[in-house]
Amino acid sequence: YDCLEQDLEQYRDLPSITKDQVHIPLRGNLEISSDVIQIKKHAAEGIGLYRTEFLYLGRSAPPDEEEQFQSYCEILKQAEGDPVTIRTLDIGGDKFVPELNLDDEANPAMGLRAIRFSLHEEQLFKIQLRAILRASSCGRVRILFPMISGVAEIRACKKMLGDIQAQLDKEGISYDPDLAIGIMIETPSAVMIAPLLAKEVDFFSVGTNDLIQYFLAVDRGNEHVAYLYDPLHPAILRALKMTCDAANEAGIEVCICGEMAGEPLYALVLVGLGFHELSMNPACVPRVKRVLRQVSKQDGATLVKQLLLLSTSKEVSTIIEAEMRRRLPAIFAQPPIQ
Amino acid sequence: YDCLEQDLEQYRDLPSITKDQVHIPLRGNLEISSDVIQIKKHAAEGIGLYRTEFLYLGRSAPPDEEEQFQSYCEILKQAEGDPVTIRTLDIGGDKFVPELNLDDEANPAMGLRAIRFSLHEEQLFKIQLRAILRASSCGRVRILFPMISGVAEIRACKKMLGDIQAQLDKEGISYDPDLAIGIMIETPSAVMIAPLLAKEVDFFSVGTNDLIQYFLAVDRGNEHVAYLYDPLHPAILRALKMTCDAANEAGIEVCICGEMAGEPLYALVLVGLGFHELSMNPACVPRVKRVLRQVSKQDGATLVKQLLLLSTSKEVSTIIEAEMRRRLPAIFAQPPIQ
Ligand SMILES: [Mg+2]
Ligand SMILES: [Mg+2]
Repeated sequence: YDCLEQDLEQYRDLPSITKDQVHIPLRGNLEISSDVIQIKKHAAEGIGLYRTEFLYLGRSAPPDEEEQFQSYCEILKQAEGDPVTIRTLDIGGDKFVPELNLDDEANPAMGLRAIRFSLHEEQLFKIQLRAILRASSCGRVRILFPMISGVAEIRACKKMLGDIQAQLDKEGISYDPDLAIGIMIETPSAVMIAPLLAKEVDFFSVGTNDLIQYFLAVDRGNEHVAYLYDPLHPAILRALKMTCDAANEAGIEVCICGEMAGEPLYALVLVGLGFHELSMNPACVPRVKRVLRQVSKQDGATLVKQLLLLSTSKEVSTIIEAEMRRRLPAIFAQPPIQ
Repeated sequence: YDCLEQDLEQYRDLPSITKDQVHIPLRGNLEISSDVIQIKKHAAEGIGLYRTEFLYLGRSAPPDEEEQFQSYCEILKQAEGDPVTIRTLDIGGDKFVPELNLDDEANPAMGLRAIRFSLHEEQLFKIQLRAILRASSCGRVRILFPMISGVAEIRACKKMLGDIQAQLDKEGISYDPDLAIGIMIETPSAVMIAPLLAKEVDFFSVGTNDLIQYFLAVDRGNEHVAYLYDPLHPAILRALKMTCDAANEAGIEVCICGEMAGEPLYALVLVGLGFHELSMNPACVPRVKRVLRQVSKQDGATLVKQLLLLSTSKEVSTIIEAEMRRRLPAIFAQPPIQ
């Protein structure tokens, strides 16, 4: 891509709109608070994934409500009216509650983590929910629950949110009553029941990294099976399609926030699948925007139909690469840098 | 169930046929070779799942071809013409190849195991395939590959089988040229691409224990998340339905061999989903047969349609229990013993 670097600068202030006039917001993932600078630099439209873990890690006690509230408000101020999707704590449960004795978890990736941990440690969870709700009066907050696997879990989350809202009302503390509620789609069960979950929430956010891991039963950190970890596996395409179809039928937003979202080679496919927003490492925004402005959603849908007929990821990647080279030879002339 | 124990005896020699005349073979799972006695005792129709692990575990070197061949033939002889489904090695890779250094696997359930290990250790795998092929001349063998996640894997297995068959031809060693080839459906990806996989094989065998684990991202051995492990989760019902539909559309057999298969309460649902065979702990055969002979596949299909509209496993289990109590009050009068 080297020779095209200067070319990218021109996309900074252009809108992220396809040739057939579909606006696809490109948002930034926020891992640590200083990432805000990158988000500004690359003109991402707000924050599609604010990972709150960084507030909790590397310290002996979790941050209290006031500290969280301040941190969220600080980011919201810097987002200047763009939406900020705050994801509740997404870590293993052993980080702050050693009494849980999770050392014996043989497969922690399928253990007490993320929303399971939050629902288990209600007090810790309520503090975070209160801080997020209070922050929703400082800007456009959307709240996102990680690793939902069933309807009962999201209902439990909504119940707690409702209780805290009632409490805030009583205390006369303001918050956004229309706060959008979303869930990560990353467990295979969430994909299977996406039409049921779509009735419960305002938006989906697909976390492709975990989604691929669980669908293929391939630990994404395990080098011995790395050869099987494959975003273009026909099963993954079908899972993404089912999720987008369910969201679009229910009329709710569907965003993608895993590593796939930042890969320019996949941009046409993702728009064709029906994603409304992509959230990525902010540095990827200009490259993805450059591609999006030169393709149409309609062409993406046609390509997806063709891909869904294929049996292996090798066939899928061959077609995608050929198609993108044909459409945008200046960008995809070389095999993509991995 | 206690008061009904004598009643069960009468089912021993009756065929496993529904009221609408559909024959649903009930087969036994074989964990160790002595289980054959139980299979005879309870009149299971052959062996739906022969776990070959027991030949390999608890010893320093894997069994050689001749030993495996003898073991398989011994079981086949005892099966007296009933089919025996032999599953290739389904364990973690560290058992015989310590050089692999799999101790560092953070989540071994999503690591180098089962078919991944076999395809990695070709020599070990070829010995087992040769032994199974040779044994296929002693009885009705079906071969089953565990933990398939994509089309490329099953094609690799079939290629190796073909090569070994050619070699056996050259050596003048006999085997069953029509040996049925099947795969376990237990990874979520296999479910998603079931129509593609159905084109590659003669039968599916659904391993519900792992299927539930991977779909829900819940380690089935982890007590902290045991409350989430749920056979009646709406996502699981949908996964089973997708698998059965794909098999039935392709005209191949679909069997179920996880713990769900041995639960009398689920028998009507499983038949309604479209399973052709159930394989279980042989001791469960009489109870499941008693239920099957008093229900119809048609009623099962109607019940399944109703269940697929529900949002939570609680709703699903409530309907199933009410339905089974209504149909067979003498059997399901009490809440089922867990
Ligand atoms: Mg995740
Ligand atoms: Mg298994």
